[in-house]
Amino acid sequence: MEQRTADVTMFRFRQGECAPSHDKLAVEEPLEIRLEYGPAEARARKSISITMRTPGDDFALAAGFLFSEQIVRHSEQIAHIRYCGPPVGAQRLRNTVRVALRPDAAVALDRLERHFYTTSSCGVCGKSSIEALGLTACPSLPVNAPLVPSAVIHQLPERLRAAQELFEQTGGLHAAALFSADGALKLLREDVGRHNAVDKLVGTQLLAGKLPLHECLLFVSGRTCFELVQKAVVAGIPILAAVGAPSSLAVALAEEHQLTLIGFVRDQRFNVYSCPSRIRSESALHEYGGQHGR
Amino acid sequence: MEQRTADVTMFRFRQGECAPSHDKLAVEEPLEIRLEYGPAEARARKSISITMRTPGDDFALAAGFLFSEQIVRHSEQIAHIRYCGPPVGAQRLRNTVRVALRPDAAVALDRLERHFYTTSSCGVCGKSSIEALGLTACPSLPVNAPLVPSAVIHQLPERLRAAQELFEQTGGLHAAALFSADGALKLLREDVGRHNAVDKLVGTQLLAGKLPLHECLLFVSGRTCFELVQKAVVAGIPILAAVGAPSSLAVALAEEHQLTLIGFVRDQRFNVYSCPSRIRSESALHEYGGQHGR
Repeated sequence: MEQRTADVTMFRFRQGECAPSHDKLAVEEPLEIRLEYGPAEARARKSISITMRTPGDDFALAAGFLFSEQIVRHSEQIAHIRYCGPPVGAQRLRNTVRVALRPDAAVALDRLERHFYTTSSCGVCGKSSIEALGLTACPSLPVNAPLVPSAVIHQLPERLRAAQELFEQTGGLHAAALFSADGALKLLREDVGRHNAVDKLVGTQLLAGKLPLHECLLFVSGRTCFELVQKAVVAGIPILAAVGAPSSLAVALAEEHQLTLIGFVRDQRFNVYSCPSRIRSESALHEYGGQHGR
Repeated sequence: MEQRTADVTMFRFRQGECAPSHDKLAVEEPLEIRLEYGPAEARARKSISITMRTPGDDFALAAGFLFSEQIVRHSEQIAHIRYCGPPVGAQRLRNTVRVALRPDAAVALDRLERHFYTTSSCGVCGKSSIEALGLTACPSLPVNAPLVPSAVIHQLPERLRAAQELFEQTGGLHAAALFSADGALKLLREDVGRHNAVDKLVGTQLLAGKLPLHECLLFVSGRTCFELVQKAVVAGIPILAAVGAPSSLAVALAEEHQLTLIGFVRDQRFNVYSCPSRIRSESALHEYGGQHGR
């Protein structure tokens, strides 16, 4: 049975107190969908999509994707669906499926060229997920900086809401905002796509010559996935906080790049999933005060 | 100034009553990002991405995307960013931007081949958005069927939650479920990606030989975008309901294909944005009863 959840250790902040704890996260792993098609004497193989998914029902996911994109129109066109490539990593994940069409199945080749993620020939197969997704040669984030009081994190939702009231409220937009380490809002963008909202923030700062964003923290209204952590790391943002939950791969990538990843920022509490040293809790301050004789 | 919200008319259902009303939606439109690069004597042009976005800050979005994907590493590599192609439709939308790199800017050509949406040469430019996104030759949905009492719609969130309790609760998963017209849960799938959850549902039914799903309604935990409506239409699902808001393009596509699109299903209320004739409100029943003399 594939793993759909992952157990992680993290730090729970609440009312100025910080305590180590455990959490269950949704597993996020890439799935590469490959297609095999054409007459028996001239079979063609093509990688047509990588999607970030929770493992489980992978064959149905591949079939449903091909159907939704109108590449496959009937189940009779499918000869078989199988995992291919070796299992990946310690958990022996299967992250590549091949859908073989019957030799006589007509394929809308023009649709294969449209709207799909394309990949290098190697793809996800046989590499660790993070390695294969190709986040290479990123500049390092500053060590243990900036230092942010937990009170600043607690204030983020209210400050975001106050700023959003300046814009139209449709209930249908994701928000992403850059804050300084003392909690001052620097820049807010909203979009139907959460990745777009972050791209707009980063692009604005890039064009203004303000990268890397080593003194900033990024706050987003939704959940955090691999893609958002990637964008923060590349832009040099050391702290990523979200109203919602992180995925397993978001935490793994954050740990690899020493980014502080914070989730569930709401109701005067939040969880820190990686690199908690950038967050100063009041209880920790009291302890230090005690240790140093005040 | 680009339009970031769109006004629509819809029907508001609450406590058995149905009333026509207005709403503001987040605008969703495609943005095609093209790259121009290479030495002056041999400039190359390549379409590298289509993203569904809310108009505004499009140049920053394009720059931020290229930076996050590590194709551009410094703003100095960018010569200029401009809209290209003619304005689209009555609203004269600009949905294509070209980022021209300086002739001496090194481009990681291998990264251009990885992980991006590719498009036909025509792309979004100069067509209506829906036409360009290529939802072609879909079978028609059944007219005015199935008929679903508004009470069934009100029950969807609770029935989804009850079924989700069977699975791990991480707070990080999107849910998608197929219900029959009388509100019985047929199939539930969860995933970090909402499009994946729907693909898993549709793929499962495809492989079981159960398409088209003309008797079903699809309920999703999040917001509805163009992509989810597309998947419902192709699978022959006449009713798509969501806990969250729809985008402008989701409503436009639903109207074009005569799909009943429902949003904000929570707290004993919901809004119907297209084809309300499939939903029977108690008040409408009373009216018909009165008209026919009871």
